Amino acid sequence: MSLTIQLIENPNGIADCPGFKTAGVACDIREKGNLKLLDLALVTSEKPCNAAGVFTLNDVCAAPVHVCKEILSQPGVKVAGFVVNSGNANAATAEQGMIDAKEMSTIAQLETGISSPFLVCSTGRIGRKLPMGKIKSGIAAAAQALSEETQASLDTADAILTSDTRRKCATAQFTYEGKTVTVSGIAKGAGMIEPNMATMLAFLATDLSVDNAALKNTLVQACNKTFNRISIDGDMSTNDTVLLLASGQSGLVPNDCPELLQAFRDAVFMVCDALAEKIVGDGEKVTKLVELIVAGCQSEADAEKVARCVGNSLLVKASWYGSDPNWGRLADAAGYARVGLKEPCFDIHYDDVPALIGGIPQDANLPQWKAIVSKKRFRITLNLNQGKGSFRLLTSDLSEAYVSFNSSE
Amino acid sequence: MSLTIQLIENPNGIADCPGFKTAGVACDIREKGNLKLLDLALVTSEKPCNAAGVFTLNDVCAAPVHVCKEILSQPGVKVAGFVVNSGNANAATAEQGMIDAKEMSTIAQLETGISSPFLVCSTGRIGRKLPMGKIKSGIAAAAQALSEETQASLDTADAILTSDTRRKCATAQFTYEGKTVTVSGIAKGAGMIEPNMATMLAFLATDLSVDNAALKNTLVQACNKTFNRISIDGDMSTNDTVLLLASGQSGLVPNDCPELLQAFRDAVFMVCDALAEKIVGDGEKVTKLVELIVAGCQSEADAEKVARCVGNSLLVKASWYGSDPNWGRLADAAGYARVGLKEPCFDIHYDDVPALIGGIPQDANLPQWKAIVSKKRFRITLNLNQGKGSFRLLTSDLSEAYVSFNSSE
Repeated sequence: MSLTIQLIENPNGIADCPGFKTAGVACDIREKGNLKLLDLALVTSEKPCNAAGVFTLNDVCAAPVHVCKEILSQPGVKVAGFVVNSGNANAATAEQGMIDAKEMSTIAQLETGISSPFLVCSTGRIGRKLPMGKIKSGIAAAAQALSEETQASLDTADAILTSDTRRKCATAQFTYEGKTVTVSGIAKGAGMIEPNMATMLAFLATDLSVDNAALKNTLVQACNKTFNRISIDGDMSTNDTVLLLASGQSGLVPNDCPELLQAFRDAVFMVCDALAEKIVGDGEKVTKLVELIVAGCQSEADAEKVARCVGNSLLVKASWYGSDPNWGRLADAAGYARVGLKEPCFDIHYDDVPALIGGIPQDANLPQWKAIVSKKRFRITLNLNQGKGSFRLLTSDLSEAYVSFNSSE
Repeated sequence: MSLTIQLIENPNGIADCPGFKTAGVACDIREKGNLKLLDLALVTSEKPCNAAGVFTLNDVCAAPVHVCKEILSQPGVKVAGFVVNSGNANAATAEQGMIDAKEMSTIAQLETGISSPFLVCSTGRIGRKLPMGKIKSGIAAAAQALSEETQASLDTADAILTSDTRRKCATAQFTYEGKTVTVSGIAKGAGMIEPNMATMLAFLATDLSVDNAALKNTLVQACNKTFNRISIDGDMSTNDTVLLLASGQSGLVPNDCPELLQAFRDAVFMVCDALAEKIVGDGEKVTKLVELIVAGCQSEADAEKVARCVGNSLLVKASWYGSDPNWGRLADAAGYARVGLKEPCFDIHYDDVPALIGGIPQDANLPQWKAIVSKKRFRITLNLNQGKGSFRLLTSDLSEAYVSFNSSE
């Protein structure tokens, strides 16, 4: 018997999960005329807690990513929480960047009076030094503002945003032996915000008591199936980070119980999946969300190649934007994945309507494809009919506004 | 002593080379309001001639590509010439596509009365059946119009275009033993330009007498260094084809003479290189041409990976369009090529002006980078300082107009 896990209807961010305090404040890193934007988030666990992280694979890796990796590499480490700024990525900032990232972590310790290390994240423009004066006063203000209140949790979810147009929260819960178990999460999107932030960040919290190895394992599996299967513009950032903290507040230890561990894994997956869909749906100047399913490949790796070629093709994305069911461009992109696609075996469906069956266009269905491609969200299935390998990619269209947005400084 | 090869100043296409007749006519495949666009080209050699071809590597490969490969696979084959239509790619057209491509070749034989096979190419929209009635009347009209006149040659160069805004011709000549030797060429480009020549066609002619194997060898080498090192949107097409025909009209046989063979190779390279640059410069809605040089990699393959990640990054291309010297995006894209870039060793130059040296931003030079990135053509050099592998890619910016153009049917 498996436990029933549900996403709650109005998630409020990290504070949905017992055992954490949060704060989101404005410290003038992000300017927008006279508007003060929230740009510094601080989260602490009631007691030092277990944690795991998954990070960008980019060779050019931001200083805070190095600092997080260093902290989490210590065996059995417990962390105080994490501190995040938006508006500046602290990436490609050489030695000074490392000094500043470490100092951010230290300031959080000093201002909160907690001696355990703070994980640290930054997101924003690459190649500029962190304004440490602003960061310092921001952390001081946030430490004063830390609370378990809903508004503080929403401010935290807002303070990590950059070019996102909306807050991204997801919380999953289930009941075990009469107790409610929670996994809460917040995220900021991929695809540039101020024309310079290709970063995605996500932060998850749970009140289960899970050791660092199991946290890491759970997070890696969930990320591989969610955040690693979305694409807006095909650019991997220098700062991508997903953190998962476990407060242990519920007193439940899933490592002793396979059923509980599985429910926890499922809950983490559900939260990551919900956040991933929110990220693509709020991608920079995105007007359409496309669920791309590639099936019938000789391996999952082949299916992934095809999905990424199609999902990142400028010509394909531009045709979606124009509501043009140009399946020829899909076939072209699938063909240059070079996985041995055989035209006489190749099928394409828009939602459930065939466009190509065994390489033969189903032209009579054209009005239906057009209607499907005009929707805000639709599914395209490519079946190579050569094996059992499949891959699902959530992707988006490409608008003129994206180019315009990302061509201005 | 090597021979002096020169590109001539006002190239007029195939007919610059003795021994060929050309024609370009309108047969209503491409419509633009009431405007009749040239859309069918026919070229014949005075006598059946040697030929070689280089083709797309896409798994989804257009019917005419299959037909050309079949013809050129016959040992010692001599061809009559070639026939090309624009406006329809005859790709993803299943069995009927093969029947139609073969018929195009046969009609050319019947209408010209030449029994040798005609090579055949198509370019345009994927997934629609070739309008054979129009094709047939077009070939008939072209066969009547065949001539050695300059205007016919220019019409031929125009008839292969699709979204190109201008004709692309290049002709190289040199003198050997008092005789002028010519390599002439025409091309079409526009969108889908990436490794292995997506939707690009090029046709070269020479009056040397070169056997098929030497033609092929020469053409492959030239393509690898030219057409395979350009990128507009990262999409490889289903139809890419480069053909090289040798009329033998000059009576000179380079296989007997290493000096002459080398001069021929150099001339073919020069014509391909000139045409490749014209293709990128006239890419769909391109406003800037960028010469990207990646140096200091552990291998040429690594340098190519970096060049393609940077040269195809939407964020990088959008910043060039906006004249924003956003070197952080260059570093990010170079980093996700995953060739082991080390930030403390990494240099970036705009033309000759340093932007990043050993990972340290050279911010004082910002006004100079801005001026360079505002030019119509500039060079960016990325040096990883880890080896001797290098790669040069000609690429372009990405404009809102590209998206707009490719989002309409």
